Amino acid sequence: MTLLVVGSVALDSLETPFGQKEDVLGGSATYFSTSASFFVPARVVAVVGEDFPEAHLSFLKGRGIDLEGLTRQPGRTFRWKGRYGYELNEATTLDTQLNVFQTFSPDLPAAYRDTPYVFLGNIHPELQSRVLDQVRSPKLVAADTMNFWIKGSREALLKTLERVNLLFVNDAEARQLAGEHNVVKAARAILRMGPERVVIKRGEYGALLFDKEHVFACPAFPLAEVFDPTGAGDTFAGGFMGMLATSAVGVDSSMLRRAMVMGSVMASFTVEKFSLERLREVTRPEIQARFAEFRTLTHFDDLGPLER
Amino acid sequence: MTLLVVGSVALDSLETPFGQKEDVLGGSATYFSTSASFFVPARVVAVVGEDFPEAHLSFLKGRGIDLEGLTRQPGRTFRWKGRYGYELNEATTLDTQLNVFQTFSPDLPAAYRDTPYVFLGNIHPELQSRVLDQVRSPKLVAADTMNFWIKGSREALLKTLERVNLLFVNDAEARQLAGEHNVVKAARAILRMGPERVVIKRGEYGALLFDKEHVFACPAFPLAEVFDPTGAGDTFAGGFMGMLATSAVGVDSSMLRRAMVMGSVMASFTVEKFSLERLREVTRPEIQARFAEFRTLTHFDDLGPLER
Repeated sequence: MTLLVVGSVALDSLETPFGQKEDVLGGSATYFSTSASFFVPARVVAVVGEDFPEAHLSFLKGRGIDLEGLTRQPGRTFRWKGRYGYELNEATTLDTQLNVFQTFSPDLPAAYRDTPYVFLGNIHPELQSRVLDQVRSPKLVAADTMNFWIKGSREALLKTLERVNLLFVNDAEARQLAGEHNVVKAARAILRMGPERVVIKRGEYGALLFDKEHVFACPAFPLAEVFDPTGAGDTFAGGFMGMLATSAVGVDSSMLRRAMVMGSVMASFTVEKFSLERLREVTRPEIQARFAEFRTLTHFDDLGPLER
Repeated sequence: MTLLVVGSVALDSLETPFGQKEDVLGGSATYFSTSASFFVPARVVAVVGEDFPEAHLSFLKGRGIDLEGLTRQPGRTFRWKGRYGYELNEATTLDTQLNVFQTFSPDLPAAYRDTPYVFLGNIHPELQSRVLDQVRSPKLVAADTMNFWIKGSREALLKTLERVNLLFVNDAEARQLAGEHNVVKAARAILRMGPERVVIKRGEYGALLFDKEHVFACPAFPLAEVFDPTGAGDTFAGGFMGMLATSAVGVDSSMLRRAMVMGSVMASFTVEKFSLERLREVTRPEIQARFAEFRTLTHFDDLGPLER
């Protein structure tokens, strides 16, 4: 099955304790589609400027990603500059230049309108809704959002959420959106806003998947070296949605849990190097091996009788 | 098999966003032994003052806990007063009165010296070593410690660690002890100090068990209501060690993993009410049911072939 992502394709400048990089490939749709491309063909709706290197487009095409929905417009590409401290869990944004992204309006090519799996990257919730106006009966719609929209465009976001099956947020965003400190209460409040499922990402602590009845907890892979957490959330979503879209039986509980693990697997690779460097070189056997390592990481035997 | 714990028996005063309590039962040895008593008989070495209520001793005896090593001395019982904010993950200590605990010197009754499982609660590392001088070839020695000893009595602590099989620390303590921010590197550094295993507790994010080859990640049980995190770490250790001590086959990987889960199970009960109120009423079927819920919380199926 195919997968559609709407989001940013960007040039990032990063400062971490381990070094810095200027104008490297970034953006939510970039990380998402590259991660998903290990599982299913992905279609991208995004915009870049005249300065966007052709080599980056070749890389994405080389991964089998459909770029019919990626338009090149006059002006400069969206740029983000961020800094990470040793904690590596939250970026300080040093500079954001929207450039061509400022007037981005997602128009789907006709061939994209029947895509069964849709991921609405972190863009204005009204634009997210506009995408949904253009797709016909998708199997599953997932969305990401951020504090900026939760605070500044709450009404529009709540309207979008009514049309979304699954929301990806981090724990701070979940608390802010729900107005609840406790993460379980926050998840339940979000489920009352529309989505049937919510994934709460907790960085190095892993992620939780909530539906109305169950919770699934997936750890993050314990890494001794984390170089650059940029894109980890979108890579997670790409692995998750990509895995889900391989399902022959549709979206069931077993598939959703494996999607959580695959999201964590893919995110664990991304953070090992700058930008998309690790995703460029990772192989399918490496992905399968790390999935198996997640089993070793989490498996325990049944209790047996407690006899005392 | 039996279990020995050396630590504090205290009267706690607690302020949380949900209410406050004065002079309630507390202390590391109290939480630990009560938690462990659901699995094996526990022996306590600790000290209380003249003011310590007889009813608390009756409660502990009623749980089958051996109090031969609990001495009552002239003076007042150790008191701790703490406050938790809405975050509920770190206490602010408002007042500590060591009282009879100030001159505590653990002397083991003769009958305790062959106890196979030993837990050294969070006391001065020299006192922890003194306990080890008195036990004969234990199967497993585990210890807890804290920032105060890591900073102020580092040399003594390092000597104790050489004699310990397993260390329980939280993530901040692990980082401080190892001088490493990354938790995987910190764990590896601690394993070079003596213990063959280290458990890194991360509060609401669960716990990690490291040995030289493997990592096991256990989530915390997602609770919508957390009233009082006091004693969660000692309750975790009590469930962990209690479970381990039920092993007919000794300490193997399968048993250690189940011990991690049981530690999390017991800690998840403790935080649901003030002081030991929840541990007083919890039943073995509830414990078994929650252990089973941890399986639901963490289980995922194998990947199967990735065919794309």
